[in-house]
Amino acid sequence: MLVALEFLGLVAFAASGALAAVRARLDVFGVIVLGLTTALGGGIIRDVLLGVHPPTTLRTWPYLTAGAVTALLVFVFHPQVARLRRPMLVADAIGLGLFATSGTAVALALDAPVYTACLIGMTTGIGGGAIRDLLLREIPLVLRREIYALAALLGALLVGAGHLLHLPETPVLAVASAVVVAVRLLALWRQWHAPVAREA
Amino acid sequence: MLVALEFLGLVAFAASGALAAVRARLDVFGVIVLGLTTALGGGIIRDVLLGVHPPTTLRTWPYLTAGAVTALLVFVFHPQVARLRRPMLVADAIGLGLFATSGTAVALALDAPVYTACLIGMTTGIGGGAIRDLLLREIPLVLRREIYALAALLGALLVGAGHLLHLPETPVLAVASAVVVAVRLLALWRQWHAPVAREA
Amino acid sequence: MLVALEFLGLVAFAASGALAAVRARLDVFGVIVLGLTTALGGGIIRDVLLGVHPPTTLRTWPYLTAGAVTALLVFVFHPQVARLRRPMLVADAIGLGLFATSGTAVALALDAPVYTACLIGMTTGIGGGAIRDLLLREIPLVLRREIYALAALLGALLVGAGHLLHLPETPVLAVASAVVVAVRLLALWRQWHAPVAREA
Repeated sequence: MLVALEFLGLVAFAASGALAAVRARLDVFGVIVLGLTTALGGGIIRDVLLGVHPPTTLRTWPYLTAGAVTALLVFVFHPQVARLRRPMLVADAIGLGLFATSGTAVALALDAPVYTACLIGMTTGIGGGAIRDLLLREIPLVLRREIYALAALLGALLVGAGHLLHLPETPVLAVASAVVVAVRLLALWRQWHAPVAREA
Repeated sequence: MLVALEFLGLVAFAASGALAAVRARLDVFGVIVLGLTTALGGGIIRDVLLGVHPPTTLRTWPYLTAGAVTALLVFVFHPQVARLRRPMLVADAIGLGLFATSGTAVALALDAPVYTACLIGMTTGIGGGAIRDLLLREIPLVLRREIYALAALLGALLVGAGHLLHLPETPVLAVASAVVVAVRLLALWRQWHAPVAREA
Repeated sequence: MLVALEFLGLVAFAASGALAAVRARLDVFGVIVLGLTTALGGGIIRDVLLGVHPPTTLRTWPYLTAGAVTALLVFVFHPQVARLRRPMLVADAIGLGLFATSGTAVALALDAPVYTACLIGMTTGIGGGAIRDLLLREIPLVLRREIYALAALLGALLVGAGHLLHLPETPVLAVASAVVVAVRLLALWRQWHAPVAREA
């Protein structure tokens, strides 16, 4: 179940990277590279920070295949994919939740302090999207969008709290991911924004 | 004393990142993330290059707290902070000096060759600012500004020379940091610029 | 012979980074930093992903010297260098081929799975150029240009295939590099492009 959801998140991230690349008029190979980078980038940053060599996501061929195939499908069917705005946002929220919470759990398993693990988990969730926007010369959406990085941090903190309370890991991960998804979708639906500084 | 100065540098870097984020109209959470990234980015790059996992700056909660609180204060009081241009530049120069020289010392302690340690030290000094500018879609100021990266390299080279001459480390670090601060402030005051290529 | 060619590739990459920096009006020190980053960036990414600390390219002083001297020469003679468009493209293709194939070989020697090694090899080839474009606020050319990343991947795949077939490494590297150079130059000459998505 969690594995199936993780694939859904990975596919959503790959699709968002590929769609952005199509819009930036990259060629088919650039679209695949950007889709893969978006899908795997968060995990690569996590593993580089934690010293896992080579990064897990680069050693897992089903991930690579799923990301590349998704990007290729987006390249071919991008007008249809662009119309799936709502399902894409839901899938992206699921990816955010699963990546942020599993990133925290991986860091805890490697004996990182709890607050370090939470920061690394948040970075795992938002890293792929940040790289995507950097490569396409945008100010990362993940730092501007409604409650995006904040939702990831919230999920990471829940996993950290569960670890401190010695709760069993699987249900904690499930609940924390669900909270991320709920907060993110609520923020989208109710158009919650974190405050912006007043003009000087 | 050195620890107090390092905190001053960290706070200055966090403030510069947060101020740039306020100007780019990021929300409060984006401002905190960018402040932290600017303050800790140089140390994270250093540790990733040297294989220190997870990076020290992510494992030191006073750093994280100081950076986050600074960014939050800048978010609230940004018009006042923006007016502190001169003290900010001095604090930033102190941060540059301390980060570049301590980065070199850390690399030497991990047995990197001297010239490698100097390059890593320079990168530690300018890395946070470079990431800040990259995320905000600017050509890094650190590569364009009056004698900025060059001052960092100079400090790193002094630490490397002290190491080759077997001088005691603490006074070398203090002198090298002071040289960086002096060169950077002199360059600002006298408007020294490194030459730019003539037009073709 | 291979070492001489690798130097040629490194010089070509340093020159391309320095030339781009001159055009972006960076000062002489920024030009050197950008030249070095372009020349060494692919190898640094490779070593960070593989856990080689500190990165080999930062520990090899002939590389550093060659890159810095090249960048300095470009700073002084940039109008002349800019006119050498054709030899520069050939040298850049040689660099791409050698970096992509040797990056794959290094990853295989460190026991990465074959497909992981190929991805890391491709990244080694295109990484320096991608960092150059990122720092100068461009969408990376390597993701848009005629058959550039694709040529690098092809070379990496040939090295991976040679590894699976237990062929001797040196001739495989030579052939794979030559294929990259040939594909890239043919693509330039015949103006091959990978397809771009049709407008929505």
